[in-house]
Amino acid sequence: MTKLAVIALGGNAILRGDQRGTTLEQYNNLDDTLKNLVHLIKEGCSIVLSHGNGPQVGNILLQNDAGESQYDVPAKPLDVCVADSQGSIGYMMERTLKNVLKKAGIDKDVVTIVTQVVVSKTDPAFQNFTKRVGKLYSKDEADKMAAENGWAFKPSPKKENAWRRVVPSPRPIQIMNELIIKKLANSGVIVIASGGGGIPVYYDENGFLQPVEAVIDKDAASSLLATRIGADELYILTDVPYVYNNFGQPNQEVLKTVSKKKIEQLIENKAFGEGNMLPKVASALRFVTNGGTKSIITEASQLHNPEVGTRVVAQGYVPGMR
Amino acid sequence: MTKLAVIALGGNAILRGDQRGTTLEQYNNLDDTLKNLVHLIKEGCSIVLSHGNGPQVGNILLQNDAGESQYDVPAKPLDVCVADSQGSIGYMMERTLKNVLKKAGIDKDVVTIVTQVVVSKTDPAFQNFTKRVGKLYSKDEADKMAAENGWAFKPSPKKENAWRRVVPSPRPIQIMNELIIKKLANSGVIVIASGGGGIPVYYDENGFLQPVEAVIDKDAASSLLATRIGADELYILTDVPYVYNNFGQPNQEVLKTVSKKKIEQLIENKAFGEGNMLPKVASALRFVTNGGTKSIITEASQLHNPEVGTRVVAQGYVPGMR
Repeated sequence: MTKLAVIALGGNAILRGDQRGTTLEQYNNLDDTLKNLVHLIKEGCSIVLSHGNGPQVGNILLQNDAGESQYDVPAKPLDVCVADSQGSIGYMMERTLKNVLKKAGIDKDVVTIVTQVVVSKTDPAFQNFTKRVGKLYSKDEADKMAAENGWAFKPSPKKENAWRRVVPSPRPIQIMNELIIKKLANSGVIVIASGGGGIPVYYDENGFLQPVEAVIDKDAASSLLATRIGADELYILTDVPYVYNNFGQPNQEVLKTVSKKKIEQLIENKAFGEGNMLPKVASALRFVTNGGTKSIITEASQLHNPEVGTRVVAQGYVPGMR
Repeated sequence: MTKLAVIALGGNAILRGDQRGTTLEQYNNLDDTLKNLVHLIKEGCSIVLSHGNGPQVGNILLQNDAGESQYDVPAKPLDVCVADSQGSIGYMMERTLKNVLKKAGIDKDVVTIVTQVVVSKTDPAFQNFTKRVGKLYSKDEADKMAAENGWAFKPSPKKENAWRRVVPSPRPIQIMNELIIKKLANSGVIVIASGGGGIPVYYDENGFLQPVEAVIDKDAASSLLATRIGADELYILTDVPYVYNNFGQPNQEVLKTVSKKKIEQLIENKAFGEGNMLPKVASALRFVTNGGTKSIITEASQLHNPEVGTRVVAQGYVPGMR
């Protein structure tokens, strides 16, 4: 039987922090990352790809801001900016992957689906905005934007007297068109979906879909997507080969194959960085808890290597068995 | 048997020339336009929607320009800007249409597919750039951009001493993922595809997909899409109910149901405005020539009305028969 995997590409797989953000840089990074999929595809694995969009949507927000002040082009709300980024990143991934496949002698369809992801308006995230987005503002500018647009601000942790907009980061509860994604993937099409955690929307009290300015964690959305389409495996690609317990401390421990139970304990012990590894580990755990066979956290270049990577497995799982 | 229709929304259906371009304006226009589809859907018609992106991609180009000068955010090439616009317009259409359908008591999936459209690098359009895009430049600025980016410029017909970038407008020859679009549409899913004429790409001499900075006419792409997926009808929505022969002249003649042959003659007689009705009429003609039953050019609010609109039909076609 064919294996179905959801593979979540981190922001670094498309644009590294030390890069300016040109389209050429992104194509080169994507080529480097996506050629690692060839091995899985040759093994007969069906694939759904998701991706981050942090640096890209950050740039779109700056372009929106500059376009409004310089040309009076109305800035778009955050959900529409995420949709922009799904279009362009999806296109760049799809075209690059088609060429990677061609080079490998593989003829496969790749399709990019613009994906809304539903959140709940009663999510506690709407009481405590945590996600910083967009440019730095002075106190006066921030007060003005707050009054004009109802935006919330928090001081920048990196720069004094600088403020950044904060938005909620609610939990994803539904992936729009999940059945279509599932059917396409199971028919052998490589599907790119749920980019940037998805375009955040919610159902109002009358059942209508409403937009919301928020950012959904892309690993959380990928985990939900993997569960909903009945994937066997969830790969969360990042820039290190392994997750560590107590990373950077004298007692640091590399995590290879770990049980659901052990991961739960480690999360309880606050073993993972909150803004960094915790969302990945928690998403990996959630997938296995919800019936997935295993979640793998590693770097793209190790995708071919079953010896490398942190694997979260359901209790009682025997490596090599399915 | 269910009828399959491709419906191409004009730029005005999403953003009118007299509007500033806010997201709210676009949602209101889309709601006005898309509710006209309910009648067709209730009749059992399967639908693929395409759309223009002129005003939106124009704004994205301005935002790119301002973002580069103000924040050093690298401007994206035109094909990536088109991809951005497919993401955001597709999302806005999909969400609005889901709500329109809900209001009408219809439960139907709507899915947006980011669509590359293949052109040929030997297309004569690459010898004569005709499509003006982006902002106005002074002669010095235009010379600088031409030297830096290899862009071509032509004087603005609207303003003296102002120059605009020109890009080729090649003929679409292949719609990527056309079989997936066809399957989804025939299974009852409403598919949004080929926005803005599609993201222009070409196959290089080694068979790899390469990007190209160009603009594909959205009606030409919609006509090709309709042919390739075996649609019965192609609707080209615009802001007038009919096409006229010799519009605005004393001998103007409203066109209702017209044969392929008559349209061919009228095109030869230059009866249609080149930047305006000609591409629509030519795309309508091409669809019928390639086996389509009929092409209808009219405004969205007349979609329910079989008495209104210009219908191009294959010779020998009997109205009411299929």
